[in-house]
Amino acid sequence: MQIGFIGLGRMGQVMARRLLAAGHGLAVYNRTRSKAEALAAEGAVVVDSIADLGANCEAVITMLADDAAVEAVAGGPAGLVAILPAGAVHIAMGTHSVTAVRSLAEAHGGAGQTLLAAPMLGRPEVVAAGKAGVVPAGPRDALDRCRPIFEALAGRVFVAGDDPAAAIAVKLANNFVLGCAIEAMGEGFALTRKFGVEPRLFFEVLTQGLFGSPAYQAYGDIIAREAYDQVGFTATLGLKDINLALAAAGSVGVPLPSGNVYRDRLVGALAHAEGELDWAVMARDQARASGLR
Amino acid sequence: MQIGFIGLGRMGQVMARRLLAAGHGLAVYNRTRSKAEALAAEGAVVVDSIADLGANCEAVITMLADDAAVEAVAGGPAGLVAILPAGAVHIAMGTHSVTAVRSLAEAHGGAGQTLLAAPMLGRPEVVAAGKAGVVPAGPRDALDRCRPIFEALAGRVFVAGDDPAAAIAVKLANNFVLGCAIEAMGEGFALTRKFGVEPRLFFEVLTQGLFGSPAYQAYGDIIAREAYDQVGFTATLGLKDINLALAAAGSVGVPLPSGNVYRDRLVGALAHAEGELDWAVMARDQARASGLR
Amino acid sequence: MQIGFIGLGRMGQVMARRLLAAGHGLAVYNRTRSKAEALAAEGAVVVDSIADLGANCEAVITMLADDAAVEAVAGGPAGLVAILPAGAVHIAMGTHSVTAVRSLAEAHGGAGQTLLAAPMLGRPEVVAAGKAGVVPAGPRDALDRCRPIFEALAGRVFVAGDDPAAAIAVKLANNFVLGCAIEAMGEGFALTRKFGVEPRLFFEVLTQGLFGSPAYQAYGDIIAREAYDQVGFTATLGLKDINLALAAAGSVGVPLPSGNVYRDRLVGALAHAEGELDWAVMARDQARASGLR
Amino acid sequence: MQIGFIGLGRMGQVMARRLLAAGHGLAVYNRTRSKAEALAAEGAVVVDSIADLGANCEAVITMLADDAAVEAVAGGPAGLVAILPAGAVHIAMGTHSVTAVRSLAEAHGGAGQTLLAAPMLGRPEVVAAGKAGVVPAGPRDALDRCRPIFEALAGRVFVAGDDPAAAIAVKLANNFVLGCAIEAMGEGFALTRKFGVEPRLFFEVLTQGLFGSPAYQAYGDIIAREAYDQVGFTATLGLKDINLALAAAGSVGVPLPSGNVYRDRLVGALAHAEGELDWAVMARDQARASGLR
Repeated sequence: MQIGFIGLGRMGQVMARRLLAAGHGLAVYNRTRSKAEALAAEGAVVVDSIADLGANCEAVITMLADDAAVEAVAGGPAGLVAILPAGAVHIAMGTHSVTAVRSLAEAHGGAGQTLLAAPMLGRPEVVAAGKAGVVPAGPRDALDRCRPIFEALAGRVFVAGDDPAAAIAVKLANNFVLGCAIEAMGEGFALTRKFGVEPRLFFEVLTQGLFGSPAYQAYGDIIAREAYDQVGFTATLGLKDINLALAAAGSVGVPLPSGNVYRDRLVGALAHAEGELDWAVMARDQARASGLR
Repeated sequence: MQIGFIGLGRMGQVMARRLLAAGHGLAVYNRTRSKAEALAAEGAVVVDSIADLGANCEAVITMLADDAAVEAVAGGPAGLVAILPAGAVHIAMGTHSVTAVRSLAEAHGGAGQTLLAAPMLGRPEVVAAGKAGVVPAGPRDALDRCRPIFEALAGRVFVAGDDPAAAIAVKLANNFVLGCAIEAMGEGFALTRKFGVEPRLFFEVLTQGLFGSPAYQAYGDIIAREAYDQVGFTATLGLKDINLALAAAGSVGVPLPSGNVYRDRLVGALAHAEGELDWAVMARDQARASGLR
Repeated sequence: MQIGFIGLGRMGQVMARRLLAAGHGLAVYNRTRSKAEALAAEGAVVVDSIADLGANCEAVITMLADDAAVEAVAGGPAGLVAILPAGAVHIAMGTHSVTAVRSLAEAHGGAGQTLLAAPMLGRPEVVAAGKAGVVPAGPRDALDRCRPIFEALAGRVFVAGDDPAAAIAVKLANNFVLGCAIEAMGEGFALTRKFGVEPRLFFEVLTQGLFGSPAYQAYGDIIAREAYDQVGFTATLGLKDINLALAAAGSVGVPLPSGNVYRDRLVGALAHAEGELDWAVMARDQARASGLR
Repeated sequence: MQIGFIGLGRMGQVMARRLLAAGHGLAVYNRTRSKAEALAAEGAVVVDSIADLGANCEAVITMLADDAAVEAVAGGPAGLVAILPAGAVHIAMGTHSVTAVRSLAEAHGGAGQTLLAAPMLGRPEVVAAGKAGVVPAGPRDALDRCRPIFEALAGRVFVAGDDPAAAIAVKLANNFVLGCAIEAMGEGFALTRKFGVEPRLFFEVLTQGLFGSPAYQAYGDIIAREAYDQVGFTATLGLKDINLALAAAGSVGVPLPSGNVYRDRLVGALAHAEGELDWAVMARDQARASGLR
């Protein structure tokens, strides 16, 4: 397929490479052009404006940091809604708010275009290895047409239905369950430490028992070693993420009390100037609340 | 070894059988004698009183439902503290409170005996298959002497140190992390259901991704099917358990905010006459709070 | 003083009348002109555009429902920032977000103007009776110049300092303490009802004892009578309000765990189609969670 | 009336004096006899054993610190149940658990006696001034007979019904609402302090507005001055109290999420060696969580 790609951050780069490797034609645009040029050697066409993507792309992927960025790219006289031909598909793959996704879907719909939301599950290195997941949602025929894209990007494709917001909900809920697991470990480690238990022992009890999965292995290890400066995902981003989850859930009448708990830990991390540490630092906030260290 | 065994509930029976199968001599006592007699055919000696265990046992295991039961068996003129010879070991393997374990340890210590706490990790069928864990803690030499017992009972032995209360803390913290995982799934399922996502899809996202471990596979499946009448562990027992965890944590200055959250769900389950359903029913309390069903 | 006034909702009307009654000159603008005309008979000059306010007003008050409304009035080529002369003061009296107030302050500052934030404390009928409070904050000289305005509007003036955001924080924190009081009563009434205590008796214990103040008298009575259809402030508005408080607090590293609790109750109210009832309906959500009714 | 009195702590002394002042005959017993002797000068008869109270008292009041104390006094061969004549009334006025009160009621009932629970509302100095409240509950005829006692002790008598546990529920719920108010203030002060607002200003906003009642005036002042060493009621006692409330509520299916919040603050206070400070120190735990100080 002929695909446009906007947003070459760390994750975007990895995704673009997988699409090229799968043989798709790729036109890339990035606000900072230098990041795009690295991909030219691998076959991507680098363009200077969103408008240059528009004519001959069957689908344009955006992989942008937040609502403001995707709204800036989609709206206005030179944005995707204005530029893309009728029938084109915009695949929003960043973690956006339900509100933003719904208003994007409406704007594209008004121009005879289609919005899909398709957040990725997995860190860049997992995506690079072809082992990530992707959760696309939106109108069925656009999903079908874009299937080769999703398969090129991710080993597992979880179709969440025909409402793009549903894909966002799944992504936010998955991250939320992870945040809860980290928080629960933080509390469990604090409790056992206070009784003189070695963190490594409790780590083994968890991961050799009911919790032998990547979430507990990776984050349990960080917490046991208090290695919060090994940053995969910052506390600040974690806070942004749970705020999106709480807003999405609140808008449909779902309380997330466990989300409140770990949001408060992340807020506590900010209060102690730990926003740029890994979000597992919520376990340190728990330790602090427990008078440890 | 020559071992005494008190408390032949479902779990106690399975444990006693593993000890017999490993070639240990076993004298068993149960308030309801009929439960003990089933084991006679497999080589156990059934006795009529705690006193009858005392003389020739190197260690006496108790596997009792709560503090009151173990205190009744240990205290008084015919209890373990009074009956056991100096040098004997009492291995308390039920899930008791930190307070009870500490006062038992003191009572036995005063009689020249030793208390070990050694809660089991795993359901009876897992214990039967030799795949459970056990978390012993207490004075080192008693731990060493009783090692054959732990190895006969469980595939994995996690020594938690020389304070019996530490073993309790590990057991409670492990159950606590499980309770948090169930609650987090309950919240995540409610959120995604409200956006029209099939529970089975969200289950797959979780278990094929970061959460491919027994805790999420077993409980995620129960929640996705709302099969709360497949009872492994009741809401009432779950509530008793988190109350023990909160009490233990509170006594050493550790808040457990995620524990509060799922305790409230279990209290909500009681309020709706669901105490005898599986404790995963906390997900139904979450659904109810979200106006689902 | 010569004052401009934008936003003649129920509260705005009452405020405008107090300013007129105190002898101030008032030019009023409202999107729906009819609401403004009612004030003409009392001496207000009704104008057709924001631009018409600009020239001869020393201060312009906005009393608008949300951030979007005040941003629409302040920004753009015909907005307050563009229209007001240098030296003019914009007094934002609605409950806005800290973010919106800070960006308004910056925009006005860039045009040589001053922003004050000055939220009102009290319902319209309290304001009408001259018994409300007002919490102004911003640059000292502008506060001094506008003092007659504040004194005309409210019996008590609480100057919160020179940062307009501080006034917002005080307003949000005051509402937050109220929300917590309502939630606490909801929980207390549920607990005592379950023990067969008449709600009226518990109401008397509270209000004749430690809690003999308007918050408990008014809301305790609503809860005791379950009269949630006597709407002073809707659950939907309460949710908007606590969302603002949580966002403001989160931005400066302050967890508000009690705010989470009552936010979840309001979300639960929405989930049960009770968003348009009085926000004391959080007590009904508590009752529901307790299996009452 | 001829009244027996057991438990001459600070509160007990004040209560005994009010009964003497009202002209009742008083026989007093205290484990530490010296405390009782102070009352002899005021007309009390000091006795050496519980048995000495029994014969000629129409009612025996206990004002004891906890369940263990009241159970020790009521049970055993020399306890109230054994000693009191049929028809006698035991008025338990300490803050006990619902469980203890129910089992006391049963024990007395079995001996043809009656248990009333009648916790006091108010600190000793308030009781001394005759301005406290009392919440009696139990069988109606015993309540009627003991009315002169309640009226001598307290300015306001709130009869909670015929179940003694209901009186406990009211007492615990009243304290609970107070704990929530303190916690809410702690959070509100932290939020406003982070925006540069003087604590005194926020105190005035609260107490001159919706919250002009003793709870907010007394505790708001302590928090604004951070005067946690002015101890009225310690954090340790506050924790014991909310534990009783959570247990009572849990037993009847009532979640108390706001109670969880302030319990965690009190646990945090213990973790930071602040258990003997006033329970308003929960506001300091909130400040700490917010990175203040």
